[in-house]
Amino acid sequence: MSDHVCATLTPTLDRVSGPSDLRVLTDPELCLLAQELRRETIEVVSKTGGHLGSSLGVVELTVAIHAVFNTPMDKLIWDVGHQCYPHKIITGRRDRMLTLRQAGGLSGFTKRSESEYDPFGAAHSSTSISAALGFAVGREMGMPVGDTIAVIGDGAITAGMAYEAMNHAGHLKSRLFVILNDNDMSIAPPVGALQKYLNDIAAKGPVAALKAVAEGVDQHLPGPVRDGARRARQMVTGMPGGSTLFEEFGFEYIGPVDGHDMPQLLATLRAARARATGPVLIHAVTVKGKGYAPAEGADDKYHGVAKFDVATGQQVKAKSNAPSYTAVFGQRLTDEAARDPRIVAITAAMPGGTGLDIMARRFPARVFDVGIAEQHGITFAAGLAASGMKPFCAIYSSFLQRGYDQIVHDVALQNLPVRFAIDRAGLVGQDGATHAGAFDINFLANLPNMTVMAAGDEADLCHMIATAAAHDSGPIAFRYPRGEGSGVEMPERGQVLPLGKGRILRNGRDVALLSFGAHLPEVLAAAEMLQGEGISATVADARFAKPLDTALIDQLLDEHRVLITIEQGSTGGFGALVLHYLAGSGQLEKGRAIRTMTLPDRFIDQGAPAQMYEWAGLRAEDIRTTARAAFAPSRTTGKVVRLS
Amino acid sequence: MSDHVCATLTPTLDRVSGPSDLRVLTDPELCLLAQELRRETIEVVSKTGGHLGSSLGVVELTVAIHAVFNTPMDKLIWDVGHQCYPHKIITGRRDRMLTLRQAGGLSGFTKRSESEYDPFGAAHSSTSISAALGFAVGREMGMPVGDTIAVIGDGAITAGMAYEAMNHAGHLKSRLFVILNDNDMSIAPPVGALQKYLNDIAAKGPVAALKAVAEGVDQHLPGPVRDGARRARQMVTGMPGGSTLFEEFGFEYIGPVDGHDMPQLLATLRAARARATGPVLIHAVTVKGKGYAPAEGADDKYHGVAKFDVATGQQVKAKSNAPSYTAVFGQRLTDEAARDPRIVAITAAMPGGTGLDIMARRFPARVFDVGIAEQHGITFAAGLAASGMKPFCAIYSSFLQRGYDQIVHDVALQNLPVRFAIDRAGLVGQDGATHAGAFDINFLANLPNMTVMAAGDEADLCHMIATAAAHDSGPIAFRYPRGEGSGVEMPERGQVLPLGKGRILRNGRDVALLSFGAHLPEVLAAAEMLQGEGISATVADARFAKPLDTALIDQLLDEHRVLITIEQGSTGGFGALVLHYLAGSGQLEKGRAIRTMTLPDRFIDQGAPAQMYEWAGLRAEDIRTTARAAFAPSRTTGKVVRLS
Repeated sequence: MSDHVCATLTPTLDRVSGPSDLRVLTDPELCLLAQELRRETIEVVSKTGGHLGSSLGVVELTVAIHAVFNTPMDKLIWDVGHQCYPHKIITGRRDRMLTLRQAGGLSGFTKRSESEYDPFGAAHSSTSISAALGFAVGREMGMPVGDTIAVIGDGAITAGMAYEAMNHAGHLKSRLFVILNDNDMSIAPPVGALQKYLNDIAAKGPVAALKAVAEGVDQHLPGPVRDGARRARQMVTGMPGGSTLFEEFGFEYIGPVDGHDMPQLLATLRAARARATGPVLIHAVTVKGKGYAPAEGADDKYHGVAKFDVATGQQVKAKSNAPSYTAVFGQRLTDEAARDPRIVAITAAMPGGTGLDIMARRFPARVFDVGIAEQHGITFAAGLAASGMKPFCAIYSSFLQRGYDQIVHDVALQNLPVRFAIDRAGLVGQDGATHAGAFDINFLANLPNMTVMAAGDEADLCHMIATAAAHDSGPIAFRYPRGEGSGVEMPERGQVLPLGKGRILRNGRDVALLSFGAHLPEVLAAAEMLQGEGISATVADARFAKPLDTALIDQLLDEHRVLITIEQGSTGGFGALVLHYLAGSGQLEKGRAIRTMTLPDRFIDQGAPAQMYEWAGLRAEDIRTTARAAFAPSRTTGKVVRLS
Repeated sequence: MSDHVCATLTPTLDRVSGPSDLRVLTDPELCLLAQELRRETIEVVSKTGGHLGSSLGVVELTVAIHAVFNTPMDKLIWDVGHQCYPHKIITGRRDRMLTLRQAGGLSGFTKRSESEYDPFGAAHSSTSISAALGFAVGREMGMPVGDTIAVIGDGAITAGMAYEAMNHAGHLKSRLFVILNDNDMSIAPPVGALQKYLNDIAAKGPVAALKAVAEGVDQHLPGPVRDGARRARQMVTGMPGGSTLFEEFGFEYIGPVDGHDMPQLLATLRAARARATGPVLIHAVTVKGKGYAPAEGADDKYHGVAKFDVATGQQVKAKSNAPSYTAVFGQRLTDEAARDPRIVAITAAMPGGTGLDIMARRFPARVFDVGIAEQHGITFAAGLAASGMKPFCAIYSSFLQRGYDQIVHDVALQNLPVRFAIDRAGLVGQDGATHAGAFDINFLANLPNMTVMAAGDEADLCHMIATAAAHDSGPIAFRYPRGEGSGVEMPERGQVLPLGKGRILRNGRDVALLSFGAHLPEVLAAAEMLQGEGISATVADARFAKPLDTALIDQLLDEHRVLITIEQGSTGGFGALVLHYLAGSGQLEKGRAIRTMTLPDRFIDQGAPAQMYEWAGLRAEDIRTTARAAFAPSRTTGKVVRLS
């Protein structure tokens, strides 16, 4: 029972404390439930913000799957997981929905540790079929698992991983349900030949018609659904007996069905559940933002929204004092592209999130959206670089993990000048641990041939874009965080930075704080705090993790008793490379106090970025404390030695 | 002109110093050339060893492509690149073929730095379509590029990356040629629904028949080829007008053609080249090992062979004194599986290379070959683990890079007990830089929740298999090298190791050598050398990079003036984690000499492993020199302080 929405609006939903309660409802009651669930989802997200459009698109699917299948014994796996809000509401988390994406609250994605109804968490795309197949095989080997159902979008299914999983599932022939949630709209309008193919299927058949699948399934379908089945098969494939792409993979294919028509969905799922013997793909056509006019009418279908007014759809956007790093990247890359026709850009289905939509408006033919396909995108960029172009691959830090081998094997090993623009570096806030850009310094800066930069502020980002554009001798990467810059003065035009050279922002005598990247304001704040305690701190911005500014490091070590590196990344990255250098050059023998401040050895749940960095032990206060503790021992013995 | 084969056997080949010489030959002369090229390829590989089967399968394709297309202006990209020996022979490298895969010689793969005829190097699978599309787009944007041709095998095309590339190519509609080299046989018999589909296509039509594609192409095909075209279309798809999977991706489809019928190949390529306006897939059916009876008759089609006798096909195998790590893994995992029915194993198309063929013989239903699909394989394993099984993912170190995001997002973040058995860790010999297992310590040991081990010898590998089998609380990885063990006594049964505990193998007073993994024999040898110079060395085997044995590290640091870590991996890995620990615990203030010996910051070309480690600066002598230099400074000042 929820007290945050008017109880009279949700009489059916109020009777549902878990999916088992759905299984005693009549079909008309399930229809009512879906209506109430949609309304509640809108109410919740209007107060919390979040992924609204995709959740509204699967309200009926959510109700129908839980009503027909025996969750949690049956394993329901939501691909990406951002469409799970209705699922969370009816799986025992209704009273915590207003904590969504907040510190200490519910995750914005599915999460194993949160509920037994989330058997496999997600947040990156296209993993669901693989995981569902794993559960299905576990069942066949005696594990306590019922049916397995993967719900995957038409964008997510373009990723190579989904194809690999379908190929394997078609080979194993395990009973498995894949529901293709086809809304023709992932985050951005989808691209790729497969999408066109799906559109063709959906356009050819009346959506209400069913294509029959496993032998005899059509005979077990109820009334109007059954009638259209054989006719639909003909319409979908162009001729009787023709097969769809999915059937060529070894799946039985049912569809297209109307993903908002509850009776049709229930009938389809019941028939499929009763008859399937192998892998089945159910093609459901849905509308992103369904049932909420402002969402349906918006270009992005309210994919991710701030808090909003339910009546008007008006979102409450926080005022910003400085431009976002993303906008700076988009605008400044466009400026560079205007000067150099060899500059092109690649995004993996995130033109808006990366800021490349700005460049695409001016140079539409020079921005390539490859779909959710980081692996291909990076090697495609390598091919472009080999042909003489200057490709900028703009991929979030955590998604760049998808193309790691391509970075190693196609880019670094061949020393091809691909530019990696890495947004969402460091902790990202409400999207939580799955989206944290924690590992890119580590997995890039230890590769031969790679140059790795991080922007200390938004002005430096401009310089790094210019530096990357000019760097034709090998691969180069620059990372920058989600959110606003620090409000520094912006240069008219980015300047090419000297490779492997940092900068000193503040001179002190006792402690050297060597920052790499956008934690710089915290580092400067820590220096101020230390000043107040009588400890004089130098602050330097390394700019490069590779090549290291070894002269700067030598100087900092010689002139200070304490050296602390600070980065918004894991161990094994910038700090590690500084330590390797100092070890190799024999400078650890000097006995200086050295500390490497990195993200801790655990995943950090969602919260405001400042909160997350507090959990991570990386606030200015933490830097101050670390510096003081490293500096203090000799002070307490009265031996404050100042190195000049 | 080559002096290493009898000139009278290769009169046509002797007239070819480069592809332009092919373009003045008549078609009958090209047929002769192919025969001679096959013979020469066999001769060469009989003396060098290497990838014979795949090279023999593409002899006619190699000649036909270079004869019809304008390489190097046209970009020919061989997927994987191990089938490139005939290509190397006719692209100016004939006189260096006997240096193949040797130190300082030709690479066993395509390589940009080696020839302008290798526009995009490879060695990992499934990158060619992405790269070719990059070149094609570069051409459209004004770069000096002609046509682009990717040759990809039926195994390689099952990887998700190839699907992503086809999806994008079908969307862009750029003119692009993909030649599917369908030999129904990658390294192992192929798996997956797609393979079945390809077999169905090949079985339905007479191989000699052509399916016509781009409008009007069939009318431009010569005599007998043209006649079969329309009939073949019907046979391939089951009915007139039906389409293949590739056409559903937006490709024009030509095929299947006989990849060893030179007139048919030439005619097909000429017609396609003359008429294509968008992406074209040419489906060529070939025989791996074609034209050499011992290869055609072998189970593995001589995929990778040692030197052999041409007359008999008998391979010269070096005698081994100790079992290979791979065989130990395969046998001991089978033993564990016999005791624990929850143990299953996953390979990505490498059952023989990983030793899982041993387990598959005894427990065929418990070994899953997912095809060339590391991404899917890892998340499939995560699903299995979530269902309660104990999956062992056996993937070479360098191929594990393909599934990095899945390791982070699906395994580590969810703390699922997937076991990673990482063969080919460290430098691997003749396969060179692309196959080096250089980065796995780095990319795994910096992840939260992950346990990372490395086997110091083959007996420890047994213990680590047992440890991984018993470790149900989270993910665990263990790495081991290519090649033989060091001949240590083998335990009857592996014992579960205490987590995060290393072992001391030799006690000394001056220098502590802390080894992680299979470089242990070199480290022990270095200790012997140092002993001869009056420097007493302790040798410890860390066993774990994560969690670190901090008590052991403390002890080594306290009791020695020098601490050196040694690992067969890049920076940012084991040594870095030791340094991070020492920095964080304030122990760098002790001023001890610390060195981290890792692979250097460059890619190491092929050679014997010992040679490669010499280039890497990691021989026993190098360890000795490093230890002596770190220990010496105070010795020269007469201040040899022994810490007890």
